[in-house]
Amino acid sequence: MENNNKKYSALHEKAGISPPEIISSSAVEQIQESRKIQPSSIELFRGILSGNITALSRAITLVESSNSNHLTKANEVINACLPHANKSIRIGITGVPGVGKSTFIEVFGKHLTGLGKKVAVLAVDPSSTISHGSILGDKTRMEELVKDANAFIRPSASGETLGGVARKTRETITLCEAFGFDTILIETVGVGQSETAVHSMVDFFLLLKIAGAGDELQGIKRGIMEMADAIVINKADGDNIRKSNLAKVEFGSALHLFPAKKSGWTATASTCSALTHDGIPEVWQTIEKFIELTKGNNYFQEKRTEQNQYWMLETINEQLKSNFYDHPEIKKLLDSTKSAVQNDEISPFAAAQIVLKRYFKE
Amino acid sequence: MENNNKKYSALHEKAGISPPEIISSSAVEQIQESRKIQPSSIELFRGILSGNITALSRAITLVESSNSNHLTKANEVINACLPHANKSIRIGITGVPGVGKSTFIEVFGKHLTGLGKKVAVLAVDPSSTISHGSILGDKTRMEELVKDANAFIRPSASGETLGGVARKTRETITLCEAFGFDTILIETVGVGQSETAVHSMVDFFLLLKIAGAGDELQGIKRGIMEMADAIVINKADGDNIRKSNLAKVEFGSALHLFPAKKSGWTATASTCSALTHDGIPEVWQTIEKFIELTKGNNYFQEKRTEQNQYWMLETINEQLKSNFYDHPEIKKLLDSTKSAVQNDEISPFAAAQIVLKRYFKE
Repeated sequence: MENNNKKYSALHEKAGISPPEIISSSAVEQIQESRKIQPSSIELFRGILSGNITALSRAITLVESSNSNHLTKANEVINACLPHANKSIRIGITGVPGVGKSTFIEVFGKHLTGLGKKVAVLAVDPSSTISHGSILGDKTRMEELVKDANAFIRPSASGETLGGVARKTRETITLCEAFGFDTILIETVGVGQSETAVHSMVDFFLLLKIAGAGDELQGIKRGIMEMADAIVINKADGDNIRKSNLAKVEFGSALHLFPAKKSGWTATASTCSALTHDGIPEVWQTIEKFIELTKGNNYFQEKRTEQNQYWMLETINEQLKSNFYDHPEIKKLLDSTKSAVQNDEISPFAAAQIVLKRYFKE
Repeated sequence: MENNNKKYSALHEKAGISPPEIISSSAVEQIQESRKIQPSSIELFRGILSGNITALSRAITLVESSNSNHLTKANEVINACLPHANKSIRIGITGVPGVGKSTFIEVFGKHLTGLGKKVAVLAVDPSSTISHGSILGDKTRMEELVKDANAFIRPSASGETLGGVARKTRETITLCEAFGFDTILIETVGVGQSETAVHSMVDFFLLLKIAGAGDELQGIKRGIMEMADAIVINKADGDNIRKSNLAKVEFGSALHLFPAKKSGWTATASTCSALTHDGIPEVWQTIEKFIELTKGNNYFQEKRTEQNQYWMLETINEQLKSNFYDHPEIKKLLDSTKSAVQNDEISPFAAAQIVLKRYFKE
């Protein structure tokens, strides 16, 4: 920023305008952005295929933009990248705050790059849609991985709806794969609907936990345990080892009570320590076993095709709803009918008919 | 039917027309129906409040009808009944075929009428939407309850969509409550989405199981175990008792691993036998405990209000979708874009935009 401020002041001098007291770095960036010559979609596409990280970052920025021109351009780049994508393993990692997701990803990611893999770390963060804050934002928690030439970390996109945020992450996967990343880690917080969204864009879903407080489970949204292909109990070090092994056994037997998965895979429970690195290689071995099985029984490809369908229909359904519920007249009408339904003055179904009639009359 | 056929033939004689070889009973019923003087909605409403079971049955038939005039009339009756409804306990009962749902309901229902309760048994049967077959159809499995003056058994409605079937059952609840039934049992098969629908119209959700084959679970749809307020292991008699008790312990500990429920209730696991009646009274005691807790912490009422909202919005969303997906042009367009998405020629999101543009242009 220092640098930028100088430039900015210099510009002021030339213009004979005294610089303002404070210059926000974002303001400076905006000005710089406007100065840049925007690369064309074909340039971005070429850049991504040739492994130009700046091109990748800029393409992702386009994907994340809410500007409709940017959207068209982003779609061009993504559709161009599609034939070069789909060659990676996509891993979803979830867990309530406090289980040590970031430190796990730091250590796990380093382990993967150590195996010669190219790792992209993305995130779907529901809180970012409200607070515009973001997990992965604090990269200092991943200082090793950040420095790694074979790793790329991108904080969660923000947006009005979870669907929007998820879409941006899903499309970013395509760009990262075309760039050449062969392992995509997608972090999310086990507190919202974001798990379903992430589960619908990954091949393997990992649930991170810690032993101890039985209520550590309470933070995790219902149904997530059933989504997990593996439950990994983190922080299994020092005094925690015994508790962690107990938890491993508990979850192991619980997982066996769940219905069999379409993948033919039975979810596993294991322990690890991001501190001592114990159990970290085993996590990757488990994932390799899963990939071998599901590529063998063709579930791997089937699921990806299903996921594409899912995202197409999800996008459509979301749009149909927002068109309806954002309609000013409908909003008013809904408020009145809602309270009528609450007070049992009218049946939910009769109420729905009233609102729908109004909508489709127009 | 014998009787009807005579009538029918008599009519033919008068008309000087020789009767057809075979007369389908349904044809006869249709003719008889057309002969009846249709009671007005106010007559039906009065009949229901005065405890006239014929009025109740006829009102339900209106609710189940797909004729739009009947729908308007049905809505009149339902809205009139609403202030007199909502006074019952609604219990959902699910389990894969073979766990003995009907025999359990027969015995459980008798136990409830024995306690002086008025019991209505309804069903949401996904298969009925396809095969128009229906659970509860075979009332011989409930011969005792059928004869019981304080019990009312109505087979599942049929329809094109599960949503439609569920709506009809949900509205039938209102009619039964206004009639004076204080305990509503809703049976469903643990194989489809019907559980979510039933879960959204009951106060208490009971999952019926049998011990033994570990894969007995596989039939149950994922997530249903987490919905259950109680898991009851049926057929705990004879050689089965030991196995059943083991299963009870297993499920008991598994249930404790689930996130806490908003109701503040921890799901229970118990055994029972519809044969020896062991554990049947305990099932009702569990439900009473649940009701006491949730009425105390106000969750009971909150959930019902939520459920009304849910049904209003569900109905709207279903309609928005069917309007879109049943649109002939959209259907064609979707088929082509779907395959493009499958072959990774276009991103799911770009594909969605194409179809949506076409829809909203019109």
